[in-house]
Amino acid sequence: MKTVFSLEPIRKISSELRKNGRTIGFIPTMGALHQGHLKLVKESKNKNDVTIVSIFVNPAQFSPTEDLDKYPRPFEQDKKLLEQGKVDYLFFPNAKIMYPNDFQTYVTSNKLGNILEGKSRPGHFSGMATVVLKLFNLVQPTNAYFGQKDFQQSVVVKHMVSDLNLPINVNVVPTVRDKEGLALSSRNIFLSSQERLQALSLYQSLLLGKKLISEENKNVQMIKTAIKNYLQEYKLICLDYIEICNPKNLSPVKIATNKSVILIAAYAGKTRLIDNIII
Amino acid sequence: MKTVFSLEPIRKISSELRKNGRTIGFIPTMGALHQGHLKLVKESKNKNDVTIVSIFVNPAQFSPTEDLDKYPRPFEQDKKLLEQGKVDYLFFPNAKIMYPNDFQTYVTSNKLGNILEGKSRPGHFSGMATVVLKLFNLVQPTNAYFGQKDFQQSVVVKHMVSDLNLPINVNVVPTVRDKEGLALSSRNIFLSSQERLQALSLYQSLLLGKKLISEENKNVQMIKTAIKNYLQEYKLICLDYIEICNPKNLSPVKIATNKSVILIAAYAGKTRLIDNIII
Repeated sequence: MKTVFSLEPIRKISSELRKNGRTIGFIPTMGALHQGHLKLVKESKNKNDVTIVSIFVNPAQFSPTEDLDKYPRPFEQDKKLLEQGKVDYLFFPNAKIMYPNDFQTYVTSNKLGNILEGKSRPGHFSGMATVVLKLFNLVQPTNAYFGQKDFQQSVVVKHMVSDLNLPINVNVVPTVRDKEGLALSSRNIFLSSQERLQALSLYQSLLLGKKLISEENKNVQMIKTAIKNYLQEYKLICLDYIEICNPKNLSPVKIATNKSVILIAAYAGKTRLIDNIII
Repeated sequence: MKTVFSLEPIRKISSELRKNGRTIGFIPTMGALHQGHLKLVKESKNKNDVTIVSIFVNPAQFSPTEDLDKYPRPFEQDKKLLEQGKVDYLFFPNAKIMYPNDFQTYVTSNKLGNILEGKSRPGHFSGMATVVLKLFNLVQPTNAYFGQKDFQQSVVVKHMVSDLNLPINVNVVPTVRDKEGLALSSRNIFLSSQERLQALSLYQSLLLGKKLISEENKNVQMIKTAIKNYLQEYKLICLDYIEICNPKNLSPVKIATNKSVILIAAYAGKTRLIDNIII
């Protein structure tokens, strides 16, 4: 695996690959890699000639009150995992080259960027979409891979790719969970053992929602109330939102169908967690 | 010249050209073509294997109170001019395929988009940058050509290309003027003969500013006052702004240098005109 630190070299590598007719699979990450990321790598390796992973903890998608500084950055460990995963190129730029002093051009999703996670984290999706667009322009991938865990992120990216006419296929890969069902996340390391135990209730509550819908309880208000009641037993879990939505545009539905998605966000102690389930 | 109306064909054409190592020159226009546009075509023809022109009157860069509906659309005449100019491809999409119903992803320049023209025309540069980015992604040009007349537009586009890491060279071509010095613009057809006559004062006032600066009058306030006094004689001309700026970031300067740009915007009757001069 070759590690690339700056803009022109990665652009040159991808241009050469595209000129030679090679397909490029790309996985943008913020590092602190886990099996969820490695599943994206595996998908990419299966479908493309060359796989490029980026690691960049993107300041633009953190608000001033969020955990940018304490976001984990275990670079050597990440590198090892990517080498084991037979990644071809690791792109590892620093913030100064990604956001030079006079940087000022941002991408925003006017609707999708302001609901759910966007409502709780103003500016988050604009920062995310902007850096993903920059990385897409540098790496020029054929296919890009995102985890289903960050469901809204994948919808925002898909919409951006369509709206901005980018020649890229966006692939969403199912969430990887640990043995007990907790969705893998780089932020899970912040959980105390008590918090981790109670965080299992998130996925359980999603399964409860799915069960209710499959048992013909389609009324969204009723399902949401059942989930809220279930979570109330877990004193370390503080629900931010639970919504049942159309998976394409994330507009809330009143009557759940087998095409809906249930999205949940909650704090376990001070750690914000998100999860979702497609019915 | 081949006219292309939809997205996939233009994408296919440009992808094939790039794959075959051909350079693509691209001129995005809103039609109503004049010699200024044709000079861009000539520049592109000189420097690239293939030249693509787009004609798209972009609704996103007009505010509700502006002249979208009455913007001139002499398509057959435009086509003839481009054929005479030996353009290879004309891309002529409609608003529905460029902005489908759920379109919502916009690009904004946080600083450059809000000053000068952006202050007088809120949202204009976001709409312009968004459509230019879409067209860039569809056409994948090696070189793009913009007229110096829309100076701020060229600065916004250059900054977008740099910020978003687009692999495109942005070329700015000097303004074409009629015999009497009026900068060519598609909007000039709206001028009455009286207004047209008085509109000549804009370029004259810029020349006056340049002369003052070259005579060592560097104080911007003084130069602006001289220009305002000059224009006051022209009763059909209503000045919107006159600014002397750094040409790279358009920040106003206090002391003019031989690297400054003087930017002017004014109404001649109901028609908004802009012009500029580099010192």
